[in-house]
Amino acid sequence: MLTPPPGDQLVVSTDSLTEEVHFKRSQIPPSILGRKALLVNISDLAAMGARPWFCLLALSLPEDLARSSYSSALLEGFLGETRRWGVDLVGGNLTGSSIIQVNVTIGGTIDHGQSIKRDGCRDGDSLYLVGHVGRSSRGLQLLHELNFDMLPTREEELLELVKDPHDALCLLSHLLPAPRLRAGIWLRQRKLANSMIDVSDGLVADLQRLAEASGVEIVIDGSTLELLRSEGGERMTLEHVLHGGEDYALIFSCSDRKHQEIEKIFPEGFGDLRRLGIAHRAETPAVLVDDGRNQMILTPQGFDHFT
Amino acid sequence: MLTPPPGDQLVVSTDSLTEEVHFKRSQIPPSILGRKALLVNISDLAAMGARPWFCLLALSLPEDLARSSYSSALLEGFLGETRRWGVDLVGGNLTGSSIIQVNVTIGGTIDHGQSIKRDGCRDGDSLYLVGHVGRSSRGLQLLHELNFDMLPTREEELLELVKDPHDALCLLSHLLPAPRLRAGIWLRQRKLANSMIDVSDGLVADLQRLAEASGVEIVIDGSTLELLRSEGGERMTLEHVLHGGEDYALIFSCSDRKHQEIEKIFPEGFGDLRRLGIAHRAETPAVLVDDGRNQMILTPQGFDHFT
Repeated sequence: MLTPPPGDQLVVSTDSLTEEVHFKRSQIPPSILGRKALLVNISDLAAMGARPWFCLLALSLPEDLARSSYSSALLEGFLGETRRWGVDLVGGNLTGSSIIQVNVTIGGTIDHGQSIKRDGCRDGDSLYLVGHVGRSSRGLQLLHELNFDMLPTREEELLELVKDPHDALCLLSHLLPAPRLRAGIWLRQRKLANSMIDVSDGLVADLQRLAEASGVEIVIDGSTLELLRSEGGERMTLEHVLHGGEDYALIFSCSDRKHQEIEKIFPEGFGDLRRLGIAHRAETPAVLVDDGRNQMILTPQGFDHFT
Repeated sequence: MLTPPPGDQLVVSTDSLTEEVHFKRSQIPPSILGRKALLVNISDLAAMGARPWFCLLALSLPEDLARSSYSSALLEGFLGETRRWGVDLVGGNLTGSSIIQVNVTIGGTIDHGQSIKRDGCRDGDSLYLVGHVGRSSRGLQLLHELNFDMLPTREEELLELVKDPHDALCLLSHLLPAPRLRAGIWLRQRKLANSMIDVSDGLVADLQRLAEASGVEIVIDGSTLELLRSEGGERMTLEHVLHGGEDYALIFSCSDRKHQEIEKIFPEGFGDLRRLGIAHRAETPAVLVDDGRNQMILTPQGFDHFT
């Protein structure tokens, strides 16, 4: 029984992690799987600037795992993150299944009429990125390459698994993404963002969604892309940056007159803030890159569940 | 974005239908699977006397089904029921998977402080059943026995599949259970029920849950059980009545002084109402049957996802 805060509006969202689609059983410890399942849903709230309120967990497990410490480790990881983010687990369901699936539904609150959606990007808006892109897919590549026998479960130990500090961050970002909740709430409360989306399927794919919802074309600055790539270490490619999924960074747009203010007052602890480019009203929504001489259309190659 | 009705409280619940656990792909058409996925969640609301508000659908499908008419038929069935029950689909998620899973989260509203829970059954309460038990598991047995090539999708056609009218009702009850939503809301609004639960895992299993939550033992009248069995046709067994799952009937308890009133004023269209027996405060919660001479303990043998 939940009592809605007077005057607030409710947002709800659902997201699943499915074995062999989003993860391989041997490549993620159960406690981290439980944590990640909540984190990706917290990111959905971040993209709306919503405060976490409640969640429900629908867990599908093969019988041998349900009867072993696997299920309790998964649940402990999940519950730890619910405490960390202040979200109440109010319902659940456990089902037998041939594969592992962790489905979470999350509810959050927003002050009445204050929502930020992906369709609010206007002509002349500046586009911003909070956090990083490319790290998660580079981390996944590392998991495949290194083929660890057994992964540790704590952040500090995960960071020590590989020597290269860039790679270590990528591995951690893949296993335990950092939802930009504080940034999302802050942007909403200060009415600084016209539109917002989280990057779950890749930078270009999610920019394209924002462009289509808003009826704009988005022109990204080529030098910013190169900067994002170079910061990711030697093995980070432009492919990772443009099309890697599961980073759970935040993209938002703001009016041109606000963009200098935002760069000054954006709190440091909320994640790296980068100006990606600019939006123009357009008949055909698209994402382009401007290398200083030419503009080229970027085609989404993000995660498609059925290719 | 959802605006909670002022003063109301929110209840949320989640339930999944998983291939090879809850159904076989060949034994349920996709449109009926979609409908059933909402119906079992509506039954969760019925058990709390809540009015439907919103739902989210997390669908896992193998690629060949996602790319075929299977997915649209499933979605159409689901959406048809959302319209019928007045519940808004406000979020969703589609994931590739080796098996079909339909997970639904549902939200409902209750006037502030009016909830009915399974822990409210008191000493001396009468126990009532709304609807039927046993039909669904008998219907599942028929599905296995008759091994239909292709099932029709409309109720009228489903009822014509088998000659015996009892069996026909059982088949329909299994494929398209009838949640007792109007009864649940009516009982809550008139403050007639002290406790309530829906029968998803079997009569004894769910009575046992109510008994444990409330700290009572529940004594069922043996002649009522025999009546329930005989009404189900020749092939209905006591096993079906006591332990068959997925009927989504409603069980509630009411104070002794209200039970005669309820029997008089319970609206006819809400489903058959039957008095099952009586509850006593007890150290050891249990479900018993009284055959007029002896009392025997009934052990739950309901659906266990992991046996």
